[in-house]
Amino acid sequence: MTKADDSFSVSCPTPKNELTMVKLGHGSGGRLTDQLIDQVFLPFFDSEQLLEKEDAATVFLDKDRIAVTTDSYVVSPIIFPGGNIGSLSVHGTVNDLCMRGAKPLYLSAAFILEEGFDRESLETVVRSMQSASKESGVVLIAADTKVVNKGCADKLFITTTGVGLITQSKIPSASRAKAGDAIILSGDIGRHGMAIMAARHELEFETTIESDSAPLNMMCQNLLSIGDSLHSMRDLTRGGLASVLNEIAHSSAVGIEIDESTVPVDPKVRAACEILGLDPLYVACEGRLVAIVEAQRAEEAVSIIQASPYGDGAKIVGKIVSDHPERVVLKSVIGGRRIVDKLSGDQLPRIC
Amino acid sequence: MTKADDSFSVSCPTPKNELTMVKLGHGSGGRLTDQLIDQVFLPFFDSEQLLEKEDAATVFLDKDRIAVTTDSYVVSPIIFPGGNIGSLSVHGTVNDLCMRGAKPLYLSAAFILEEGFDRESLETVVRSMQSASKESGVVLIAADTKVVNKGCADKLFITTTGVGLITQSKIPSASRAKAGDAIILSGDIGRHGMAIMAARHELEFETTIESDSAPLNMMCQNLLSIGDSLHSMRDLTRGGLASVLNEIAHSSAVGIEIDESTVPVDPKVRAACEILGLDPLYVACEGRLVAIVEAQRAEEAVSIIQASPYGDGAKIVGKIVSDHPERVVLKSVIGGRRIVDKLSGDQLPRIC
Repeated sequence: MTKADDSFSVSCPTPKNELTMVKLGHGSGGRLTDQLIDQVFLPFFDSEQLLEKEDAATVFLDKDRIAVTTDSYVVSPIIFPGGNIGSLSVHGTVNDLCMRGAKPLYLSAAFILEEGFDRESLETVVRSMQSASKESGVVLIAADTKVVNKGCADKLFITTTGVGLITQSKIPSASRAKAGDAIILSGDIGRHGMAIMAARHELEFETTIESDSAPLNMMCQNLLSIGDSLHSMRDLTRGGLASVLNEIAHSSAVGIEIDESTVPVDPKVRAACEILGLDPLYVACEGRLVAIVEAQRAEEAVSIIQASPYGDGAKIVGKIVSDHPERVVLKSVIGGRRIVDKLSGDQLPRIC
Repeated sequence: MTKADDSFSVSCPTPKNELTMVKLGHGSGGRLTDQLIDQVFLPFFDSEQLLEKEDAATVFLDKDRIAVTTDSYVVSPIIFPGGNIGSLSVHGTVNDLCMRGAKPLYLSAAFILEEGFDRESLETVVRSMQSASKESGVVLIAADTKVVNKGCADKLFITTTGVGLITQSKIPSASRAKAGDAIILSGDIGRHGMAIMAARHELEFETTIESDSAPLNMMCQNLLSIGDSLHSMRDLTRGGLASVLNEIAHSSAVGIEIDESTVPVDPKVRAACEILGLDPLYVACEGRLVAIVEAQRAEEAVSIIQASPYGDGAKIVGKIVSDHPERVVLKSVIGGRRIVDKLSGDQLPRIC
């Protein structure tokens, strides 16, 4: 690894201490989450799929190759502008399958309900899951319901697991980025996280910020047409664009350069971030992806994403470089350069 | 449906009222759970797999047929004699796959952790998941970790989803029981539920009751050797033997006759049930199954189960009849006959 230039500031060092107790930040998707996984889970579960740390695992059955992914959703509040925990749980799982080039087919859902939760809210959530599943082309085939005493859960948690079919031989992976590749972002960032924050704190902005929560199955399926030139895909969830780029830089042992002026942030989102002192680069999306594509196919890939649902704001925002491997460097609007590191804990807990 | 004999007492009528709020009993696996599923979930999710209400769904991929099942585990306390929430979450999901004649292959696990949960307990749980997975022959390929604020969960919830491969053409189903079939029980009942109750209430019995939590993959794989004569398999979890027999009676539209004197209950479990006023027939197991087998292969099936891990107490406990369809009738030790209905709510909340 090359040494960071002295002018770079490293925002958050890796927590080196031993984990003794679970903190809220261990669920952040940042370095504390890495610590939890590396210290507590991976020593016991060292399957090659888990070690890959991809959005979805892929396995060969007898004749088929499938992708499998699981996520618990604990977002608070459970209903927010632009969606709710139900639609989010479908979109999130569908998108994780898509990031591996799989066609999402089947979904399971496990509900943990708090005693006293009202039927009306539950139906709102379930109805959203129904339409999200329909739009994503997945069928819910297995489900479970548990109820815990009042005060032992926060209204409703949903865990969705998805199974998708992989038909191509080479699949996108965070470890396949190569120097020279273009980095394509499918749209503006930070809507989901700020929609949740605004709803949670009942912040009044002039206009409502809606979550970008959406299924990316069509976009990804269309992108597969560029074949092996599509090296990596990642959806931007916990930890936002900055965390995903760090994961790719790390998995592929490459450097990443991003031009801040090209990263779209809606003015409402930017204003809300400024009020709350947050950096939009770290704020979660739930309907955006980053695609790492061979430079000569990049413009074509941008056009494909722009023509797909939820992709009209797609653009090239940076490139993979051989300098400073495992480092994400941002050229700021005012001309400076800074390292964009993975956060330690949370800017925003429980946003998914 | 034949009318119940006047001498029968129906223990719990189906709740006919509209669900307006989630009660603890909606997680019982009894009639209230049926109400929740029928009124709130199935109207929105009517895939053929969910409508079948089997332990695991089966789907055809491109070339393979797989079984998929999901369950959240919210057991309290999380560590109990004979196991913990980790081993339980593996056994429960492995067993659900086995009940459909699938070979369990892959597992995903999603953890919802309460802020402040200690590392030592988490490692105890994870270590148990590791050994349970090893014994069951499954590989954990996908995982997720979320953390919620203190007071928003009860220490730790785990949701496991399993994927298994089905190679035979005809698979066991609760809907395939036929008049004349023998009902085989793989061992004594009620250990898991009473182990949890004793641990929860710190009941002091002369000797500790240990949970029967165990993986039944070898037993089921061995049983598949009798081929199509194996009509149904169900593991006894929430609601115990009584609930499973009711589900089979209902799905197959057959009557069931059980001889109480043949149903093994450990004296410690029986004593604990008497103290707490519980009927062992409704107390959960986590390592027992019921197999419905053609009469002429029944003795052979009993021998196969007895020779398998966790099956040495196997015996025939009753038969499928054409009388009183959808009713489970128990010949009691003192000679009477009574209907064993599905419970409405819970004898024992949060035992899995």
